[in-house]
Amino acid sequence: MYPNIQAYDRGGMFSPEGKLFQVEYAKEAVKKGATSIGIIADKSVVLIAHKNITEPLLIPSSLQKIFRIDSFIGTTYSGLVSDGLHIIGLMRSKTQTHRMIYDETESVETIAKEVSEEMQQATQYGGLRPFGISLLIAGFDSKPRLFEIEPAAAFYGYKADAIGAGKKVAEEILVKEYKENMSVDESIDLGLKIINKINVKKINEDNIDIAVINKEKGYIQLSLKEISKYL
Amino acid sequence: MYPNIQAYDRGGMFSPEGKLFQVEYAKEAVKKGATSIGIIADKSVVLIAHKNITEPLLIPSSLQKIFRIDSFIGTTYSGLVSDGLHIIGLMRSKTQTHRMIYDETESVETIAKEVSEEMQQATQYGGLRPFGISLLIAGFDSKPRLFEIEPAAAFYGYKADAIGAGKKVAEEILVKEYKENMSVDESIDLGLKIINKINVKKINEDNIDIAVINKEKGYIQLSLKEISKYL
Amino acid sequence: MYPNIQAYDRGGMFSPEGKLFQVEYAKEAVKKGATSIGIIADKSVVLIAHKNITEPLLIPSSLQKIFRIDSFIGTTYSGLVSDGLHIIGLMRSKTQTHRMIYDETESVETIAKEVSEEMQQATQYGGLRPFGISLLIAGFDSKPRLFEIEPAAAFYGYKADAIGAGKKVAEEILVKEYKENMSVDESIDLGLKIINKINVKKINEDNIDIAVINKEKGYIQLSLKEISKYL
Amino acid sequence: MYPNIQAYDRGGMFSPEGKLFQVEYAKEAVKKGATSIGIIADKSVVLIAHKNITEPLLIPSSLQKIFRIDSFIGTTYSGLVSDGLHIIGLMRSKTQTHRMIYDETESVETIAKEVSEEMQQATQYGGLRPFGISLLIAGFDSKPRLFEIEPAAAFYGYKADAIGAGKKVAEEILVKEYKENMSVDESIDLGLKIINKINVKKINEDNIDIAVINKEKGYIQLSLKEISKYL
Amino acid sequence: MYPNIQAYDRGGMFSPEGKLFQVEYAKEAVKKGATSIGIIADKSVVLIAHKNITEPLLIPSSLQKIFRIDSFIGTTYSGLVSDGLHIIGLMRSKTQTHRMIYDETESVETIAKEVSEEMQQATQYGGLRPFGISLLIAGFDSKPRLFEIEPAAAFYGYKADAIGAGKKVAEEILVKEYKENMSVDESIDLGLKIINKINVKKINEDNIDIAVINKEKGYIQLSLKEISKYL
Amino acid sequence: MYPNIQAYDRGGMFSPEGKLFQVEYAKEAVKKGATSIGIIADKSVVLIAHKNITEPLLIPSSLQKIFRIDSFIGTTYSGLVSDGLHIIGLMRSKTQTHRMIYDETESVETIAKEVSEEMQQATQYGGLRPFGISLLIAGFDSKPRLFEIEPAAAFYGYKADAIGAGKKVAEEILVKEYKENMSVDESIDLGLKIINKINVKKINEDNIDIAVINKEKGYIQLSLKEISKYL
Amino acid sequence: MYPNIQAYDRGGMFSPEGKLFQVEYAKEAVKKGATSIGIIADKSVVLIAHKNITEPLLIPSSLQKIFRIDSFIGTTYSGLVSDGLHIIGLMRSKTQTHRMIYDETESVETIAKEVSEEMQQATQYGGLRPFGISLLIAGFDSKPRLFEIEPAAAFYGYKADAIGAGKKVAEEILVKEYKENMSVDESIDLGLKIINKINVKKINEDNIDIAVINKEKGYIQLSLKEISKYL
Repeated sequence: MYPNIQAYDRGGMFSPEGKLFQVEYAKEAVKKGATSIGIIADKSVVLIAHKNITEPLLIPSSLQKIFRIDSFIGTTYSGLVSDGLHIIGLMRSKTQTHRMIYDETESVETIAKEVSEEMQQATQYGGLRPFGISLLIAGFDSKPRLFEIEPAAAFYGYKADAIGAGKKVAEEILVKEYKENMSVDESIDLGLKIINKINVKKINEDNIDIAVINKEKGYIQLSLKEISKYL
Repeated sequence: MYPNIQAYDRGGMFSPEGKLFQVEYAKEAVKKGATSIGIIADKSVVLIAHKNITEPLLIPSSLQKIFRIDSFIGTTYSGLVSDGLHIIGLMRSKTQTHRMIYDETESVETIAKEVSEEMQQATQYGGLRPFGISLLIAGFDSKPRLFEIEPAAAFYGYKADAIGAGKKVAEEILVKEYKENMSVDESIDLGLKIINKINVKKINEDNIDIAVINKEKGYIQLSLKEISKYL
Repeated sequence: MYPNIQAYDRGGMFSPEGKLFQVEYAKEAVKKGATSIGIIADKSVVLIAHKNITEPLLIPSSLQKIFRIDSFIGTTYSGLVSDGLHIIGLMRSKTQTHRMIYDETESVETIAKEVSEEMQQATQYGGLRPFGISLLIAGFDSKPRLFEIEPAAAFYGYKADAIGAGKKVAEEILVKEYKENMSVDESIDLGLKIINKINVKKINEDNIDIAVINKEKGYIQLSLKEISKYL
Repeated sequence: MYPNIQAYDRGGMFSPEGKLFQVEYAKEAVKKGATSIGIIADKSVVLIAHKNITEPLLIPSSLQKIFRIDSFIGTTYSGLVSDGLHIIGLMRSKTQTHRMIYDETESVETIAKEVSEEMQQATQYGGLRPFGISLLIAGFDSKPRLFEIEPAAAFYGYKADAIGAGKKVAEEILVKEYKENMSVDESIDLGLKIINKINVKKINEDNIDIAVINKEKGYIQLSLKEISKYL
Repeated sequence: MYPNIQAYDRGGMFSPEGKLFQVEYAKEAVKKGATSIGIIADKSVVLIAHKNITEPLLIPSSLQKIFRIDSFIGTTYSGLVSDGLHIIGLMRSKTQTHRMIYDETESVETIAKEVSEEMQQATQYGGLRPFGISLLIAGFDSKPRLFEIEPAAAFYGYKADAIGAGKKVAEEILVKEYKENMSVDESIDLGLKIINKINVKKINEDNIDIAVINKEKGYIQLSLKEISKYL
Repeated sequence: MYPNIQAYDRGGMFSPEGKLFQVEYAKEAVKKGATSIGIIADKSVVLIAHKNITEPLLIPSSLQKIFRIDSFIGTTYSGLVSDGLHIIGLMRSKTQTHRMIYDETESVETIAKEVSEEMQQATQYGGLRPFGISLLIAGFDSKPRLFEIEPAAAFYGYKADAIGAGKKVAEEILVKEYKENMSVDESIDLGLKIINKINVKKINEDNIDIAVINKEKGYIQLSLKEISKYL
Repeated sequence: MYPNIQAYDRGGMFSPEGKLFQVEYAKEAVKKGATSIGIIADKSVVLIAHKNITEPLLIPSSLQKIFRIDSFIGTTYSGLVSDGLHIIGLMRSKTQTHRMIYDETESVETIAKEVSEEMQQATQYGGLRPFGISLLIAGFDSKPRLFEIEPAAAFYGYKADAIGAGKKVAEEILVKEYKENMSVDESIDLGLKIINKINVKKINEDNIDIAVINKEKGYIQLSLKEISKYL
């Protein structure tokens, strides 16, 4: 219909159909990132992330896919690594500031909103590109929470959700097999099953990150040993 | 008449016919958003918003379409989610500032004017795009109020109005069936009827937000239970 | 004469003939706005503005076309609504500042000059477009005053003037029928006659704004009842 | 010689021949402005300006072409009205500042230099266009003075000079008929004769501005009655 | 598939496939730089860097490829020399600031994160290009560490890694021959063997930089004499 | 060799041959300016400048070509008048600041260096064009000095030099006829002879500026009477 | 291989091969500059620079090619004169600041690093071009030093080096004839021999600058008389 689609896909501008092409292209960058999965389990929320390790000498623990943000908040992203690290730095700074002022953990929705606000700017202003990442933000405030933010900067809560490579496949399995109040173990098993399905290469404790957040212990990142029990 | 229409539809510039194409394209983004309806009822104003939930695991309450701004002001938007959240953040900050300075709820027209001012800038300055949202701002000051703001940043008061997908259909039904001093229940019924008409998928308490604002109780967001009574 | 006229009609640049095309195009936006008329009557100045109301549920009073700026100054605009509201906000702020510093109503010419200065910037600097509005500024200082400002930011005083849709037709009638020291009633009748001529749709108290400014009472906006007497 | 002249006529850039095309185009805008004439007469300097009034209801006195800047300085411009008003505002501010600091009228050459400096910037920096005006600055310090500034921002002193429409014709007549120490009356007669020659439409007290500056009385703008004596 | 690939490879923009072409091109600049190798050895980390010296009168020691950043941190880069020096200056300033505030050596991961943050900005903002360098950051905090940062600003830890010319060849050899807890001598031998393989020209103490970092002595740059023992 | 030379002659960029085209074009603007000549005479330095007066009513003394900068420094320029005035303003401000701080006349080379620094910026930064002027800066500090600065912002000292129209012809004559320790009278005669050669129109005291700077009297601008003695 | 090489040679962007074309073009500007040579001699460093004097009346000493930066540091550049002067000003300011803070001469490498940092910025940021100069920075701190910085902003130490016109020829001769611990006289002879070889025109004390830096006397610029002894 439009002879020259390229005229609208640069900078923060609408196409005649009301699309922001740079945001669409940023989503393509996310699709290239390794899969991350979040599941709200019984009184907890679980993050399971795949690490796409192709170099044998890379130290797996240095390719971190799940990050502690605050005592009761963790996150995982898919997409451009340095964009992810930038936003994680921002989240830590925001939650620390909140803690210093109010002496409490920031609510999960509030930090999601703050990230959304930062990422929205990058879709509206000329002179910078949208962030090339999706994030799953998990936490426990009054109850377990799980939010997804995508390059368009919208955020929604999910019972279970996936980002990155194989997102569609992952979500189909989640829809079929997710049950409310699944145990943490069942949730991890489900997440690992999905990652196994999406990826040809065998998963092991080195290319998987797992974190669990619950009311009692807050954010806990599983050790290699703990992960290996699920494999 | 003009061989190269694309020459004028980028950045904040007039076309030879005096149009701002980026604003027109932003309206296309709004048309893709789920329908929201506002109705001035007897001594109250009602907001009914549809949530376009396509993912089974999305937590419906996290996809919020109606927002409390202050004790007597609420709003709903259609269009780009992150643009909507940005403007809602702005509205809350403006009304809080007003409350702190004057110790009163800001008038509904004043907050509409402030949003219009912010959105106008995005239509005039190069280096940023117009906001891709329309808003219904509802409130009660001396009487119930309902304003619509669109990407061009103009705002008008309505007795009843719709934004987002199926706006035209919605407005035709509103014109036919709206009566002044309808009860709140009649208004909600009318709003739901319209949303049912526009959308193929059945509505339920999960994909509907409803809020009522009146003089006595101010802004009240209906609970799932309360919504389900109207279905 | 010039093979590629489009080369000069973007940004704040002169064409080889010394024209500013963006200003010309902004005037096209003004021509699309509803008609406003100003008439200097006997010891008063009268503003009569048409409101192009096409939606039955729009609250006519919310589509304001004539605005009080200060005790003795009022204005009406044609063109882009949000541009108009922005400039009206500016005018109110300028006149209030003047009042606070000098404890008097600013002269009508001074506020016209201040608006002109703001609008001139938008014709000279890159990165923003001209304002898409014309204004009639009416007031009473030593005598009744009426100024027109157009997108090029020039301003002139008139005995009687029209802006917006049908400007040419309106001015031809004004030239023929305007008499100095017409009474306020005659002036309003003349204004309404012109708006009737330009618009197919019948006028009524809902799609007409009228304001009168005189020495004794300053700025007075006519009520619906008062307007209906003239219809 | 150059296949694509348009490549150099946008923004503040030199063409291969060392020309600034935007400045040349701004001069075209000046040529469209109504004629202004300045003449150094016996111990005085006279400004005579034509007003191109085409609308019968425009209040002639509101279309001001000659402006008092300070007790002994006046100016007239041809070209874009709002650019002219902007520079006149600047001149008034500069001379007032000078008066406040030094308690004396600024010299005519100094204010001309300050205007030149402002206008030069608009020819060198990207992101803004040159001013579309020429000015005649007249004043009396040690003796009567008359300066012309054009869009290129150069300024020169003249015994008699013209700007705007018909500049060439006006200057030919001035060269032939100007005599040193002409009386003020002779000077005004000469100026009016020239304007009559250039314009088809008859001149009258309404479309002519005249100002005289001399040592005793400083800047004096002629009343309509005084002007009519010369017609 | 895309007719005009050049449309997306300038400035900080995504291509339709979600790629940042300027980052890809920066990696080409890195491939042209001389090879650097990092190896985690027994309780130490070793950096071995080749210097591409083609001019006989260049003073080899002035072409530094390995830099002390702090007592327990060193770095080497491949790519644009001045970009490398800029980032090294930044690293020194960051670690010194850390030392001044906390009175301790900054952790190796933290300085890597800070460099990543700086380099990420250069991939997202218009008006500057990505840095044309990859870095190996080596250090000892709780244990020996080795990180690689590339133009995309991602950073990972490695047991052994190579950057610059012949990176692929180098990594194949490292994968085959690297053993955990290799002695420092074995590590240096391995690094030199790789550089010999990649480069036609014979290596000598003048075109090789070697540094070792361990817990006891921190960062130690080998002298020419010490280097020559390994040749 | 390059099919599209226009690709490199806009903004502050190098062409493939290492040229700055905007600087070359600015030199064309200088060639259009009237000739100025500087000669180091016996214990003095002399500036002789032609004024290209084509309008009979222009007041010759208002078209100043030689300017006093400080007690022992003067300058003349060829090229864009307003650029020249801008730089002269800068020079006066710089030398006054120097005088206020050090209580001495700034050295001629220092002021030349400061002008060069200002003009260099305009050749390197985007968003502004080079200055379209060459200057001769003359002065006496330990001995008579004469410097030329051109649009490229380089400056050199000369025994005798010419800028503006006919520069080549002027320099050929200077080379042939200049002698060290010429008297001031001989120098002025030589300068006037050259200007006569370059220009068809007869020179007279009105279209010539002359200034002499020596140790005893500093900067002296010749009166019309003094100039006429040389004609 | 790439149909449109011009797409990458403007602004601070990488070409697909990882090249910065603007930097390459700046090197072309350097090649047009007159030759400068630096040689580390016995306990000294020597700079010999050619001055390309084509105008007979130019005062040779005003075309300075070698500059004292501090007591023990000197520099020479080839390329754009005003770029060279700008960087020399920067170097003097940096070394003076160092002296004021630490009460010592800055090390030669440190000032080279500071110049490199400044020049690197001009290769990375849009809106300014790279510097069109190469520099030889010579000095004596613990021993004689000689550094070259080129437009790409990299800097290296040399025993002997040449920049500007004929760089390749000069370096071939230097490689053949340079000996460590050559005497200052031998070094100067070698430098002059090279310049004679590169340039057709005979060299003399007027078109040659020579400076020697050693531990005892620091920076010494040779007088014309001293230079003539070597010719």
